[in-house]
Amino acid sequence: MTEKGQTLREIPVGIKAKGDRVEFDSMGEVRVPADRYWGAQTARSLQHFDIGEDRMPVELCRAYGYLKKAAAIVNRRAGLLAEDKCEAITRACDELIAGEFDDQFPLRVWQTGSGTQTNMNVNEVIANRAIQLLGGELGSQKPVAPNDDVNKSQSSNDTFPTAMHLAALGALDAQLIPEIEQLAEVIEQKAEGWMDTVKIGRTHLQDAVPLSVGQEWSAWAEALRAAVADLEHAREGLLAISLGGTAVGTGLNAPDGFSDHVAKEIAYLTRLPVRTAANKFHAQGTLDPIVRLSAALRGVAVALIKIANDVRWLASGPRCGIGELKLPANEPGSSIMPGKVNPTQSEALLMVAMQVIGHDTANAMAGSWGNLQLNAMRPVIAANVLHSIRILADGCASFRENAIEGTTLDEQRIEQHLEQSLMLVTALVPEIGYMDAAHIAEAAARNGTTLREEAIASGKISEEDYDRIVQPRTMIGNGLAGA
Amino acid sequence: MTEKGQTLREIPVGIKAKGDRVEFDSMGEVRVPADRYWGAQTARSLQHFDIGEDRMPVELCRAYGYLKKAAAIVNRRAGLLAEDKCEAITRACDELIAGEFDDQFPLRVWQTGSGTQTNMNVNEVIANRAIQLLGGELGSQKPVAPNDDVNKSQSSNDTFPTAMHLAALGALDAQLIPEIEQLAEVIEQKAEGWMDTVKIGRTHLQDAVPLSVGQEWSAWAEALRAAVADLEHAREGLLAISLGGTAVGTGLNAPDGFSDHVAKEIAYLTRLPVRTAANKFHAQGTLDPIVRLSAALRGVAVALIKIANDVRWLASGPRCGIGELKLPANEPGSSIMPGKVNPTQSEALLMVAMQVIGHDTANAMAGSWGNLQLNAMRPVIAANVLHSIRILADGCASFRENAIEGTTLDEQRIEQHLEQSLMLVTALVPEIGYMDAAHIAEAAARNGTTLREEAIASGKISEEDYDRIVQPRTMIGNGLAGA
Amino acid sequence: MTEKGQTLREIPVGIKAKGDRVEFDSMGEVRVPADRYWGAQTARSLQHFDIGEDRMPVELCRAYGYLKKAAAIVNRRAGLLAEDKCEAITRACDELIAGEFDDQFPLRVWQTGSGTQTNMNVNEVIANRAIQLLGGELGSQKPVAPNDDVNKSQSSNDTFPTAMHLAALGALDAQLIPEIEQLAEVIEQKAEGWMDTVKIGRTHLQDAVPLSVGQEWSAWAEALRAAVADLEHAREGLLAISLGGTAVGTGLNAPDGFSDHVAKEIAYLTRLPVRTAANKFHAQGTLDPIVRLSAALRGVAVALIKIANDVRWLASGPRCGIGELKLPANEPGSSIMPGKVNPTQSEALLMVAMQVIGHDTANAMAGSWGNLQLNAMRPVIAANVLHSIRILADGCASFRENAIEGTTLDEQRIEQHLEQSLMLVTALVPEIGYMDAAHIAEAAARNGTTLREEAIASGKISEEDYDRIVQPRTMIGNGLAGA
Amino acid sequence: MTEKGQTLREIPVGIKAKGDRVEFDSMGEVRVPADRYWGAQTARSLQHFDIGEDRMPVELCRAYGYLKKAAAIVNRRAGLLAEDKCEAITRACDELIAGEFDDQFPLRVWQTGSGTQTNMNVNEVIANRAIQLLGGELGSQKPVAPNDDVNKSQSSNDTFPTAMHLAALGALDAQLIPEIEQLAEVIEQKAEGWMDTVKIGRTHLQDAVPLSVGQEWSAWAEALRAAVADLEHAREGLLAISLGGTAVGTGLNAPDGFSDHVAKEIAYLTRLPVRTAANKFHAQGTLDPIVRLSAALRGVAVALIKIANDVRWLASGPRCGIGELKLPANEPGSSIMPGKVNPTQSEALLMVAMQVIGHDTANAMAGSWGNLQLNAMRPVIAANVLHSIRILADGCASFRENAIEGTTLDEQRIEQHLEQSLMLVTALVPEIGYMDAAHIAEAAARNGTTLREEAIASGKISEEDYDRIVQPRTMIGNGLAGA
Repeated sequence: MTEKGQTLREIPVGIKAKGDRVEFDSMGEVRVPADRYWGAQTARSLQHFDIGEDRMPVELCRAYGYLKKAAAIVNRRAGLLAEDKCEAITRACDELIAGEFDDQFPLRVWQTGSGTQTNMNVNEVIANRAIQLLGGELGSQKPVAPNDDVNKSQSSNDTFPTAMHLAALGALDAQLIPEIEQLAEVIEQKAEGWMDTVKIGRTHLQDAVPLSVGQEWSAWAEALRAAVADLEHAREGLLAISLGGTAVGTGLNAPDGFSDHVAKEIAYLTRLPVRTAANKFHAQGTLDPIVRLSAALRGVAVALIKIANDVRWLASGPRCGIGELKLPANEPGSSIMPGKVNPTQSEALLMVAMQVIGHDTANAMAGSWGNLQLNAMRPVIAANVLHSIRILADGCASFRENAIEGTTLDEQRIEQHLEQSLMLVTALVPEIGYMDAAHIAEAAARNGTTLREEAIASGKISEEDYDRIVQPRTMIGNGLAGA
Repeated sequence: MTEKGQTLREIPVGIKAKGDRVEFDSMGEVRVPADRYWGAQTARSLQHFDIGEDRMPVELCRAYGYLKKAAAIVNRRAGLLAEDKCEAITRACDELIAGEFDDQFPLRVWQTGSGTQTNMNVNEVIANRAIQLLGGELGSQKPVAPNDDVNKSQSSNDTFPTAMHLAALGALDAQLIPEIEQLAEVIEQKAEGWMDTVKIGRTHLQDAVPLSVGQEWSAWAEALRAAVADLEHAREGLLAISLGGTAVGTGLNAPDGFSDHVAKEIAYLTRLPVRTAANKFHAQGTLDPIVRLSAALRGVAVALIKIANDVRWLASGPRCGIGELKLPANEPGSSIMPGKVNPTQSEALLMVAMQVIGHDTANAMAGSWGNLQLNAMRPVIAANVLHSIRILADGCASFRENAIEGTTLDEQRIEQHLEQSLMLVTALVPEIGYMDAAHIAEAAARNGTTLREEAIASGKISEEDYDRIVQPRTMIGNGLAGA
Repeated sequence: MTEKGQTLREIPVGIKAKGDRVEFDSMGEVRVPADRYWGAQTARSLQHFDIGEDRMPVELCRAYGYLKKAAAIVNRRAGLLAEDKCEAITRACDELIAGEFDDQFPLRVWQTGSGTQTNMNVNEVIANRAIQLLGGELGSQKPVAPNDDVNKSQSSNDTFPTAMHLAALGALDAQLIPEIEQLAEVIEQKAEGWMDTVKIGRTHLQDAVPLSVGQEWSAWAEALRAAVADLEHAREGLLAISLGGTAVGTGLNAPDGFSDHVAKEIAYLTRLPVRTAANKFHAQGTLDPIVRLSAALRGVAVALIKIANDVRWLASGPRCGIGELKLPANEPGSSIMPGKVNPTQSEALLMVAMQVIGHDTANAMAGSWGNLQLNAMRPVIAANVLHSIRILADGCASFRENAIEGTTLDEQRIEQHLEQSLMLVTALVPEIGYMDAAHIAEAAARNGTTLREEAIASGKISEEDYDRIVQPRTMIGNGLAGA
Repeated sequence: MTEKGQTLREIPVGIKAKGDRVEFDSMGEVRVPADRYWGAQTARSLQHFDIGEDRMPVELCRAYGYLKKAAAIVNRRAGLLAEDKCEAITRACDELIAGEFDDQFPLRVWQTGSGTQTNMNVNEVIANRAIQLLGGELGSQKPVAPNDDVNKSQSSNDTFPTAMHLAALGALDAQLIPEIEQLAEVIEQKAEGWMDTVKIGRTHLQDAVPLSVGQEWSAWAEALRAAVADLEHAREGLLAISLGGTAVGTGLNAPDGFSDHVAKEIAYLTRLPVRTAANKFHAQGTLDPIVRLSAALRGVAVALIKIANDVRWLASGPRCGIGELKLPANEPGSSIMPGKVNPTQSEALLMVAMQVIGHDTANAMAGSWGNLQLNAMRPVIAANVLHSIRILADGCASFRENAIEGTTLDEQRIEQHLEQSLMLVTALVPEIGYMDAAHIAEAAARNGTTLREEAIASGKISEEDYDRIVQPRTMIGNGLAGA
């Protein structure tokens, strides 16, 4: 198979034909729309899996482009693929990666659990495009066949999880991680600016001792930074790919060394430090690494819920709630109550986060359903993980741009709350003990008086000492790490 | 407001215009694409909630058509809406219900948690269409304004949950319940036909005493019938609608009797026995009834998982598994292993079911997040419930058509299994007691012999008695209800 | 088997013996503590399932008492059990039901998934007690054997789900349903008393139009009443019991009519309208009815989360939050901040509710794991459902007694909030339209003025009209059903 | 506070007294049982939180011993605690750590969400024991007071999460990680021994190409090893502790440097490399690190489900299922079917894993409920995480000892399956192409013939080539990493 072969023809992507075309597979002939690149197995799947409207994510199909290209190159080097076929496949893969076939992947998520039908959809599109580039007849499987050439040395069982990993890595790196980091950064900037603005703290939703607005906001940034660190840990797990295990993990029908070579080639093409998984039976029989990513995405969601919820409560009111934050008024809040401003960005982000948690439940369940040499619940996890990444990333961007960046303080209200709180009494504990301090606070609550009045009236502390000790500005400590 | 007003112009749906148009709301002016019906608030939402690609389900927007039509009619009767405006709104609603504005609802699920933006999207589309029908200028809010006319006597807070209920009722009645029933029916027919085909039973995955294939299948049908009964119970809860509560449940700005009248009108239009909810504060502050529907959908999923999983294991092999069922071969099963037939319909249905369970987790969480007079996590539940209904319905149809209907028995294998099993020994227990029966079975297992050989060798039972008692065909009882 | 047999000896419950006793089963001899009633299989399970400390709930073991008693009576009537054996078994069952053997069920939840080991534990305890009552030798299995007598006409596969249903029914009726109803009743009483106390409403956590405190509270009661109705629907499903299906649902080794007779006997003994399940293959192969109960318990949890969370936010502050409710101060709130009162009952109830939701996830998963003729994930659901019922019931009681009953209003603060709110502007909408009303509210917000000032300054409405229209007390409508 | 003070009296743990004793706190006097060490706040909690029977895990209370001891030492060094008080507290902590007060912590999980009541329970027990050691009067709070001395420089808000982390670290290190590793090791040993035993592979539950038994088992070990690695990553997050943040994270009322010093002291005492958390507002306002641990525990559960399920299916039959594995017969399998051996260890482990997944759902929900400076859903996560660790650890041990170690192969059946399979045809693909190979397999399936017969009959391959290529033993590749 070292013959030189043909040169590629310069034909733009697209098929100018009408009506149907005959394609075939091992079960026989099938008609497909003449202007589509896909073949018989895609057509069969469209017929047999007409379930909902959820298409296999296009990011996953594009990720297949890298994988099929790398496989072709390694097969070529191993003398298993003629040079011209390799060139044609490679070219088709480049087009696929560039998004030129995005409309050629009509299959549903709800298909065979190994992803075989999407693997074949990819194989068929690449094969027909390669045939086109080589001047062959579409559907003839000559000179390039979907199974014997494009899928050479591969199986759905090892390619699909590899494509899942690559797609997730791409989406994490391009979408989610940068967006979380940007959100954290804006929060950190705001925190920095408000590090000396003292406010009342709240525990159990009840007035507590003071802290600064900056300290309060710093917790949110820290939560996001920690979530990114955990995402990056989960991301590491995705770098081990299953390609080279073929049907059951043994690598049957792939040449020696294929695993390593193809991983290196993918690393080169994607600039991701992917490596071949050490145990292919695990890599194909389970979905453990991507279930761990799902858990890390849930961690992001859990952190965002706290943040979005804090923001909306701190902005509640404005007159009959906490009202310490003022959110930008992006839209009329109510169809019936004029002039209302609602924390709609928080609400959208909360719903996004809950959806991610729901997806994660499905993913854990699907992840636990591996049987023997295959976990056949792959497409649902692939779709959910990519969807979660997308809505989390967009949700963070929207929340940052439309809520956080424009948030300001109602400093008057913050000051007012601080003055009213009875919990400043805590500062007296080291001086007069917990019991006496408690009785002073209770008296003030009961009598509607101020702490100062009751403290002095109690005879437990002098005016001078009170004024020296109970100073909110000295009660917030230094920085973020506590005492 | 009783003036006769104008007659509607006969203008087909559609706006022939290019470029932008100015629309406005209480916050000012906004530009929208000139060929669209929506207005300022839809445009603001598109800008501020650019999160993912999940659109508010079109079924929900269509359900709004009934609601807005009914409200217009009741407002008209109460003298709150001029006749021509009512006519124009009514006409627009009919078009909306017919699907003619399906492309006019571009907003995301991830928006304000009350659904206000989708309510306004609906209001704006109807208002502009009504304006068009009345010869006014699009975007002028004259003679029909989105808030003051289309939304009259209403709030997002009472309309959105009403639309959720109506959309879910429609989808249950048109899609899911009939599909589950059809699947149950086909299973029942198969069960009927195989009611006397005796096979080995399995408990703990281990060989047990016999039953008939029909008995085994009857359990699946029963599970589906019970799931439908539970769906119907949950469906009842949706018939109580919140419309008439307006902003917080008090009905402020709606005329006396609006709740009852509008519910009757909707009942008339939809032919659904809807009624007004007895407590609007509950109806708007929680999402309890639709969370209960979500639980019932999960019940369907739980039942389907058992069925789909049983089917794939009974069809496992064909030579190295159980292999008692033969599934139709709809497609080549493997991209690398030729001739493989996989239980792909089961896998698709399992993934659908897991997704529904995941959605349900999100829904329960969202359902628990009501605060005071509003649960502001509505859109995510609306989308999830409608999505679950859709994929369950399609999943059932696909499973029925592409798997169950074409399933046949491998009778030879069934017979073989029955003959080999040691658990027929159970029939001897009433005769010789549990202990001796156990020892016979163990001896046969240990020696690789048959039960009969060991039973007779044991001296505990005669050949005649053995042959009289151990007859699989007499061990399956009568029918479905046990002894 | 109609011989009269022996009379029972009057021996109190308890074994006066030290050291070990030899027991046996089909696998051979095992030593058990001499002062215990259990036998060989219990001892084996203790050895092989030493996992955690979660014991099979004693309510389930007691429920087995009814079932074993009923089976003995029906077997006796069918001539399958001698009268003295039946009497002894019956007596032992009565003692079991009365709780006298509560310490004789040491097995873990984490055992065989059919519950066989607990069924045998029950059989062994009853058998040995019956032997004791009949003057036999413990461990001799004479004259009463655990399998051949106590378990006659039964299998773990049909008894365990029956016991699950009976135990859950008992706990629902005795514990949960009454407690939810009591909580609802107290809330209704409070609501009644506060039906005319007008307060500001809140949607999206933002100030909205008024309602009364009683209206607000009525929503919580309604949520609880609806949750009870749903529980009662799920409870119906438990009334169908599997007993009579024996090993795989066919009823093998049980006499004709056993299913019906034993269900009637259990109904008589428990006064519950139980009936035999129409399809035993479904009743034993799935856990669908109890998974539905789990979903209904989750519905209770979802409702309670909303209530407990509303309560703690309405009580937040007291000075820097909403502060409209005053909760009883049951304990010092903080170990460091003296005088703090926290909404601890809400927190406990929230945690209870989340645990119930977590249990429900496990239950749905376990419920979906039926295989062929058995769902072998029963004990985990049994334990979770009974645990959920218990902590929900106790949680409701504690919340009622320690929070709701002692809750009072801070009427001054409620009045203050009402006066400050800008959303009263909504009442002007029918008069001046949404847009102008919005501008008035925004001006007041911007200028820190009152609505009245800005409304009149706007020239859109006269002082007289304003004062006539904007009256919170007329804005709350009539009762609970909206307009 | 540098006075020398008293010497400790040598009084054994225990209070010899009957009836009640008066204790007091800031709210007044309470009676407690005279033979208990706890005080007023524990007694109040027992009264107000009588919910279920779930006690705060004793591991958490013991972990508090390290924390309280470290705080006393650091307070002493800072001159804030007299030497004799410090000695007495320290001694009491040592006894607490040693388990001598395990029966002194009766409080429920369902209590205040900050864990304040358990913190006070610990403070009270230590204080009264210290008083006893110093010759004081129990309940007098002299010379050692629960708040002012034992809780000095601390709050529940910083101590409780610290205790959660320490308890979880201890349980991970002592229980779970070693047990998973032991299970992995035994599986690896088995895998090693069976690395050359060729068997049929299965994908989609359908016969596929061969692998070795060792390869199959290696996947399970790999899954466990990866789960441990993920646990260890999550464990890292627990090493950062919140102590030193006091009430809201600012460290109010703790001396400068307290955070660092106390972390070092705890590290010294526990030999764990704990450090102080860099952001106390995050450490107290969220439960993120332990929610991540919960996710890692779920990862263990997901892996175990796959393993336990594979094992039970591979052992299914024995005659009418797969039957390739023979599990040890630990107990009679059925109460009605004699001689049955069931995969009960798998079932128990599956239920354990599902419970862990359920707990994780509750934990994620609770983790998302932080508000402002406190997440007040701590006890439920503390209890669930420790429970999950315990049952996972015990579950792994039980599965290893009672199932895996005694599992053997049914080599005859394995061989039989291998011979029958049609999927060996895959080896022909590189030679004759996918299509022709498919037709051969289909013909053999249709005709009930062998592959070899059909292959040769097809004329596509010679007998010699067939026998050279289709050799299962050469089809399993080399080792674990695929081609």
